[in-house]
Amino acid sequence: MKVLTFGEMMLRLKPQGNNRIMQSDAFEAAYGGAEANVAVSLALLGNDSAYLTKLPENLLGETALATLRKYGVDTHKILRGGPRLGIYFFEKGASVRSTNVVYDRAGSAFATANQTEFDWETLLQDVDYFYFSGITPAISAELEHAVTTACVYCQQHNIPVVCDMNYRGKMWSPEKAQRVMSKLMNYVRICIANDEDFEATLGIKAFDGDMSRGIEQIDAFKEGMMEVTRRYPGCKMVASVLRNIRSVEDSQWMGLLLSDGEFHETTRYNLHVMEGVAAGDAFGAGLMHGILHQFDAQESIDFAIAASVLKLTISGDLNLVQESEIRGVMKKGGGASLSR
Amino acid sequence: MKVLTFGEMMLRLKPQGNNRIMQSDAFEAAYGGAEANVAVSLALLGNDSAYLTKLPENLLGETALATLRKYGVDTHKILRGGPRLGIYFFEKGASVRSTNVVYDRAGSAFATANQTEFDWETLLQDVDYFYFSGITPAISAELEHAVTTACVYCQQHNIPVVCDMNYRGKMWSPEKAQRVMSKLMNYVRICIANDEDFEATLGIKAFDGDMSRGIEQIDAFKEGMMEVTRRYPGCKMVASVLRNIRSVEDSQWMGLLLSDGEFHETTRYNLHVMEGVAAGDAFGAGLMHGILHQFDAQESIDFAIAASVLKLTISGDLNLVQESEIRGVMKKGGGASLSR
Amino acid sequence: MKVLTFGEMMLRLKPQGNNRIMQSDAFEAAYGGAEANVAVSLALLGNDSAYLTKLPENLLGETALATLRKYGVDTHKILRGGPRLGIYFFEKGASVRSTNVVYDRAGSAFATANQTEFDWETLLQDVDYFYFSGITPAISAELEHAVTTACVYCQQHNIPVVCDMNYRGKMWSPEKAQRVMSKLMNYVRICIANDEDFEATLGIKAFDGDMSRGIEQIDAFKEGMMEVTRRYPGCKMVASVLRNIRSVEDSQWMGLLLSDGEFHETTRYNLHVMEGVAAGDAFGAGLMHGILHQFDAQESIDFAIAASVLKLTISGDLNLVQESEIRGVMKKGGGASLSR
Amino acid sequence: MKVLTFGEMMLRLKPQGNNRIMQSDAFEAAYGGAEANVAVSLALLGNDSAYLTKLPENLLGETALATLRKYGVDTHKILRGGPRLGIYFFEKGASVRSTNVVYDRAGSAFATANQTEFDWETLLQDVDYFYFSGITPAISAELEHAVTTACVYCQQHNIPVVCDMNYRGKMWSPEKAQRVMSKLMNYVRICIANDEDFEATLGIKAFDGDMSRGIEQIDAFKEGMMEVTRRYPGCKMVASVLRNIRSVEDSQWMGLLLSDGEFHETTRYNLHVMEGVAAGDAFGAGLMHGILHQFDAQESIDFAIAASVLKLTISGDLNLVQESEIRGVMKKGGGASLSR
Amino acid sequence: MKVLTFGEMMLRLKPQGNNRIMQSDAFEAAYGGAEANVAVSLALLGNDSAYLTKLPENLLGETALATLRKYGVDTHKILRGGPRLGIYFFEKGASVRSTNVVYDRAGSAFATANQTEFDWETLLQDVDYFYFSGITPAISAELEHAVTTACVYCQQHNIPVVCDMNYRGKMWSPEKAQRVMSKLMNYVRICIANDEDFEATLGIKAFDGDMSRGIEQIDAFKEGMMEVTRRYPGCKMVASVLRNIRSVEDSQWMGLLLSDGEFHETTRYNLHVMEGVAAGDAFGAGLMHGILHQFDAQESIDFAIAASVLKLTISGDLNLVQESEIRGVMKKGGGASLSR
Amino acid sequence: MKVLTFGEMMLRLKPQGNNRIMQSDAFEAAYGGAEANVAVSLALLGNDSAYLTKLPENLLGETALATLRKYGVDTHKILRGGPRLGIYFFEKGASVRSTNVVYDRAGSAFATANQTEFDWETLLQDVDYFYFSGITPAISAELEHAVTTACVYCQQHNIPVVCDMNYRGKMWSPEKAQRVMSKLMNYVRICIANDEDFEATLGIKAFDGDMSRGIEQIDAFKEGMMEVTRRYPGCKMVASVLRNIRSVEDSQWMGLLLSDGEFHETTRYNLHVMEGVAAGDAFGAGLMHGILHQFDAQESIDFAIAASVLKLTISGDLNLVQESEIRGVMKKGGGASLSR
Repeated sequence: MKVLTFGEMMLRLKPQGNNRIMQSDAFEAAYGGAEANVAVSLALLGNDSAYLTKLPENLLGETALATLRKYGVDTHKILRGGPRLGIYFFEKGASVRSTNVVYDRAGSAFATANQTEFDWETLLQDVDYFYFSGITPAISAELEHAVTTACVYCQQHNIPVVCDMNYRGKMWSPEKAQRVMSKLMNYVRICIANDEDFEATLGIKAFDGDMSRGIEQIDAFKEGMMEVTRRYPGCKMVASVLRNIRSVEDSQWMGLLLSDGEFHETTRYNLHVMEGVAAGDAFGAGLMHGILHQFDAQESIDFAIAASVLKLTISGDLNLVQESEIRGVMKKGGGASLSR
Repeated sequence: MKVLTFGEMMLRLKPQGNNRIMQSDAFEAAYGGAEANVAVSLALLGNDSAYLTKLPENLLGETALATLRKYGVDTHKILRGGPRLGIYFFEKGASVRSTNVVYDRAGSAFATANQTEFDWETLLQDVDYFYFSGITPAISAELEHAVTTACVYCQQHNIPVVCDMNYRGKMWSPEKAQRVMSKLMNYVRICIANDEDFEATLGIKAFDGDMSRGIEQIDAFKEGMMEVTRRYPGCKMVASVLRNIRSVEDSQWMGLLLSDGEFHETTRYNLHVMEGVAAGDAFGAGLMHGILHQFDAQESIDFAIAASVLKLTISGDLNLVQESEIRGVMKKGGGASLSR
Repeated sequence: MKVLTFGEMMLRLKPQGNNRIMQSDAFEAAYGGAEANVAVSLALLGNDSAYLTKLPENLLGETALATLRKYGVDTHKILRGGPRLGIYFFEKGASVRSTNVVYDRAGSAFATANQTEFDWETLLQDVDYFYFSGITPAISAELEHAVTTACVYCQQHNIPVVCDMNYRGKMWSPEKAQRVMSKLMNYVRICIANDEDFEATLGIKAFDGDMSRGIEQIDAFKEGMMEVTRRYPGCKMVASVLRNIRSVEDSQWMGLLLSDGEFHETTRYNLHVMEGVAAGDAFGAGLMHGILHQFDAQESIDFAIAASVLKLTISGDLNLVQESEIRGVMKKGGGASLSR
Repeated sequence: MKVLTFGEMMLRLKPQGNNRIMQSDAFEAAYGGAEANVAVSLALLGNDSAYLTKLPENLLGETALATLRKYGVDTHKILRGGPRLGIYFFEKGASVRSTNVVYDRAGSAFATANQTEFDWETLLQDVDYFYFSGITPAISAELEHAVTTACVYCQQHNIPVVCDMNYRGKMWSPEKAQRVMSKLMNYVRICIANDEDFEATLGIKAFDGDMSRGIEQIDAFKEGMMEVTRRYPGCKMVASVLRNIRSVEDSQWMGLLLSDGEFHETTRYNLHVMEGVAAGDAFGAGLMHGILHQFDAQESIDFAIAASVLKLTISGDLNLVQESEIRGVMKKGGGASLSR
Repeated sequence: MKVLTFGEMMLRLKPQGNNRIMQSDAFEAAYGGAEANVAVSLALLGNDSAYLTKLPENLLGETALATLRKYGVDTHKILRGGPRLGIYFFEKGASVRSTNVVYDRAGSAFATANQTEFDWETLLQDVDYFYFSGITPAISAELEHAVTTACVYCQQHNIPVVCDMNYRGKMWSPEKAQRVMSKLMNYVRICIANDEDFEATLGIKAFDGDMSRGIEQIDAFKEGMMEVTRRYPGCKMVASVLRNIRSVEDSQWMGLLLSDGEFHETTRYNLHVMEGVAAGDAFGAGLMHGILHQFDAQESIDFAIAASVLKLTISGDLNLVQESEIRGVMKKGGGASLSR
Repeated sequence: MKVLTFGEMMLRLKPQGNNRIMQSDAFEAAYGGAEANVAVSLALLGNDSAYLTKLPENLLGETALATLRKYGVDTHKILRGGPRLGIYFFEKGASVRSTNVVYDRAGSAFATANQTEFDWETLLQDVDYFYFSGITPAISAELEHAVTTACVYCQQHNIPVVCDMNYRGKMWSPEKAQRVMSKLMNYVRICIANDEDFEATLGIKAFDGDMSRGIEQIDAFKEGMMEVTRRYPGCKMVASVLRNIRSVEDSQWMGLLLSDGEFHETTRYNLHVMEGVAAGDAFGAGLMHGILHQFDAQESIDFAIAASVLKLTISGDLNLVQESEIRGVMKKGGGASLSR
């Protein structure tokens, strides 16, 4: 079972240690991006995982490619060419100081790609699942068209489409996002939507925006999930991470899955967060792993949330963990590191 | 509105990472000092901020000067010459292990400066506020005289004097401190006094010395503040940070301001502390910023404590934050990262 | 009063920062081992402390030796020769991700040493206490014989033997451990046994294995300790650390001592753990320091647990603290950083 | 005497140590650009030095600005706004491996600036010398127009214009460069042209392109310089660095100046190169320093080349040296480190 | 055309910077081994390159594997299991201080592998060239048998065998090496032999052992090469690097190839050496690349030596260069960085 | 045979990598001092080596002490107390840029020690050689008296005195140095004098001050040495390093010894210098090792210069090499890395 994920990969530059950009004379370099992160997680868990993007033909493009290969992702479909690799500067927050991201992604090889460069018939011919996030259509109209074409192809060839809504307020407005995503949702079999995604990308009010008490709003989340399946009958599964974020370091997380009309909740994890990025991608990959291996719904969401909270302990965008470690966290569910 | 701060700037050397001095083969270098830190904060917040000290004419003096310039401080008044730059070694604590400071500041250019080197008429001629801390008169008798002369000049020319009591037990005894500071307080318009400062520098018992329960003693603090204004009628404002310090990483902070006879309290912040130094200077600068921009009393103390708790997330002595970040913390006051 | 400790010293390699092995291109190097750690602690506390092991005649052996000398350990008894220095890779965990150790210690100079290389008559002739841990006899049959010979010599010459049970599941099975340790216990005057040691090495059920609630099981621990003294009448003292481990960073610790039939409990410390290794060795050294200086039983166990929790704030295997710092933690017992 | 330099400042990212981009997980960050480097050098040498560019209003723009302030440059004329800070990746070569630069400067705040944003009347009103390099007009047509407008203003107000030809083959073709630069040369009083600049930017053949034997071609250089002054009679001075580059680390440098019809040659320096960037900017700044302080022609070119070869020992784009160090190199001219 | 290389991959640990092991508290980690290095070079040059070894099933084995994947090597044939990954400590020399290697490779997964684990029929079925070095049979008798079996299979199936003699004095004696290698040479089509390899592994005196004047002995080398082809008529090609090593940093290199009875010499490169390891593997890979792409003999040896001298500028065991860079060095043959 | 060396130990702080102080935010820490360096070298070579100084009772004093212990120096005679540890900032030069030292040693524990604190009768009672350098009497009048008292004691008890003249222009004038050293020379049996030492400390002109051609002046050196033995008949041996320093990295060194009226010269080494400090101390220690082990004069000076040139490859003040490495350099005398 081969999964193809489609999106942009960037260079992440983070000041060393706890430094702010103004006081740092070195940046830690990491390469990642929502769908690339999913592809890496799936490969590390032993799945046949391919990634599609466009990377420039320079040393930074080479290094992004090599990073994917290092962790076992099939990179043969990736296009090469175009102007540059997108960059984002990541200033990790602490305590009351929020994490700060400076995007420098305009004009990248992927952002300037033309939809006709993607020959979906060939690209999707050996693929069993197609995965993208809301970031991809937000990048450009060309990519929105590319995603749409891919989705239509998938529908015609019965390839399930998985979409992580992944709303990015710096990339598009809720209005724009809803216009695009509500169309794409007609092709989506499995939908991942967190916190503000419901309202921003689908116009469904499932959460009041207070990140410090997401878990308390579980009933509203459930109602929102039901509404998704009502609106988009092709969508058979909706998954979400619910969070109480108390500070940069301190939060509580749980998973929630609506599958075939039934809800499945996970343990609530009390967490000390090392780095709060890409945990949603780890969640998506964990969910996909469960689906690929035909876990039942409860095991799938338990696996997904355990993978996700493990990501919070790893530096960089990639969830460098093994299945045994995810299983370990699931097992300790009733133990020391959990909230009960 | 130009603020001039007056004090000593030192090189801080901190073992890399979590190392102890005995196991470290590298030190992180930072430059700072109570009044220099205030000057930098004010400059970063967009104010006209000048700093007065004496720096040696060697590469370390140059670098201290360049650091001030980097963050926008007016350095034209600074004297050059003298033997050396003071140093302090900073071994950051963790959990139950206390932070450890080894002073190596004796014989510095500033400590050996003669009071006659400071031509206050020229130095203060374009100044609207004069700011110093109790560290400056503690360094030497010459500097005590220099501060006194400056205060007299300020009184004669109606330049408000701001003083952060900043008691340092390794520099002088309470008896000596009280003898000197009680004289200087006659010139002070705005007084910042924290925790043990009340008793050690003013002989006013406002706190029982148990750092783990400062906030619980808020009524005693208020009584102490009232006593300050009773004794020194020229002092129109007394500000203080109250703290419950549970361990090196974990504490609760709030601000308290007595202004024109009325008390103003802030939200209580629950904090994960990255580095517990110079937060008092950030507080003083935040308060000054409010005064310079004619915030009302409540906004001033809210701004000051938000600036102060942000400092706990920054490495080094300097509070490298922007006004928007301070505003962000103030706004989240009722939110995720606060104590309720 | 000279203490001789006997065991293996290894090179510890830890990925820099929070990295995992797969993403790290540098390892921090530290040298340590249970009994070496005890010897270093005792030397740093001013005691006459010697260490016995076998180190290879290469640059790694030299560096291990130099490390011991640096911290004041008497290294004159150490044998030189043999194939290699044992190594272990240490991947520090975070939050829900457990710390991960990859042993690479097979075939080391010590592990391949022959019992006849240890001339106990000479080695023990100026020694007042002999200290080893359960790791030493677990390494090889030769070393089991060497330890036994040393114990017999000590019994004959009235040199008290101290043993930290230190069960290592990756080195031997409970059956093997019990067979060996139950014999050696006949020579032991002071026994240190933590958590699972009771059952794994002595077959005494004193703890149900749930590390998140060790302290709650204090009565079972006491019963286990009593059982030790009943079975081995030569054993006059049994000491233990009890822990509630909530996550990699967050735990609660206390000490418990059975001495001359009476129990002594310490304060319970709430801790933020920087590095959770070798705290047991710090505990053993703290206890030994108390005994060497004839502290009473309560002070001994208070000192031992304070030394132990300080170790959790230090990087590497060695407890680089001074007596004044341990005393500081003991004094703050009723203060800020403690749980009450 | 105030000098204003005009050009682009970028973030330079260099893999740590000797690493290649593919094997590096951290980049050293430095900020610089041809004209910014000149401004910094002039400020460090005690001159009144201002810099004009446009920097984005984000943390990277702030840091570039702070860097200029740190070294004493007047930054008040700098425009703020626009999309991003230009970046270049710098992979330092070694031995036979050439240094490798990956430009990522398209779409920067400066590159997208409109000529109308530069109000030259105000910007140049207190300026005594105007300095730019051929990079600035190469960036965009708008900047070409802006430079031209500035030159016209300078001519009208008798402000000498200094131009470092600085040909960059990755930015424009020789044809384009010649078309633009030959027009601008009509306004230039002092011209700096190295190696291939003569042909690429002026169409004058003064060098055969073999970097390993530039010094041997000194007569051709002289002829080229004469030709410059013949073609552009307003150009009173032409300066050049001549080089024999034997490998990344090993080269020989000398300076050559044509001033008022006479040639001045310097000592030939044999050099071990640490970092071969921005030495031309150091040369230009050294020359300007001589002119500002009315050194005679020989001293000016001696000072310029000494400043330039010192830059080869400094990491980053900025020539962080003091006048005394430049004088030291000039004095050792007949000594140990020179070629005889 | 698929190449399979067969050998051991190890973890290399190097003190950071210029440190010696005794003063270093961190090691840079790199993964490599003679045949793995060849496989990586071939993959980076765009060839179909597979590697065969046995790696342990732990995080170090995973990381070695991921490193190969990162650079594009086909890792599907690699066996997993066994005790440990071999390690070597690498203390880089400087000037008169020689580089120092401490081997810690005994008992590795590969060294303890049984010859029966290698199913050559399957492993070699899609292979066009088989490449090993003299290190592999030196590791163990089992591996000597494995290599022999592979060679026999290759002979039977007309797969050319390439062997780099690669004598390692710390692994076996000349007598042992000659006994084994002279048997294996009967199967070798292409032989790489450097410096002392001729005598130590083949008993042919072609070099007097003075590394400071290898190039001067080119005639003796030629005679040795002829002797190789006389003794082993199946050997059609003998290639060698000749060196004058003046110090750790300073040496002169050239390539020499005997092919079909004719000698081909390359330019002599004067080099500044960053890291003098694995350049022989880079040479072997460069030669193979020429053969795979049917370069003529002169171009092959020119390409091989250019690849080799580029390796001297790269940190770690792997020659991370692109074909264009090798071509660049070949072209500059008459230029700046070459000796003429 | 026990050697006691007497002098000051300091903390050396060096910007990381090639950085200048103004651009560095971290300093590498090392501990050393002329006589401490000699003591460490002697201990590493297996001699009984003790060191005498006074170190402050703080963490920096502890670390200096631990460093000595690490390398095997007997530290029992060292006094503790006093204000601070001396510091020096070390900015390593490159190519034409000279190395730059900023002293911060005033007011150190040693510099403020009183001569009466040194009880020479006890301190020298088990000592066979007494070694100091000209730095020690240059520090203070008290230390000049202490050295004198020690010398007198040595003369009375027939303990040979060894003195490295070690002139430091930043510490005293030639006049002052000559006044003091000419008196002390009356007690010296073995004198080490380099370059400018002859004139500055003894008023003997043996070198014209041009460091680029010291070796060419060997005859003048010989004459100077003869003059030393004529003036001070008790001085039986004079040793010197002669150098041609071409740049920071590039120099040629040789040793010269006058012993019992005969001259002994060594090979001339062409060197690539990593760090040009403390090589004179390595030379002194090498010479002493020869004397302690009764090498003949030629072997002694050969050993001394080989130890000295090895130091140029080591970071920090301490010559961390083994006897076998020194022997290796001696043996390669006719080989690759030498000048012939």
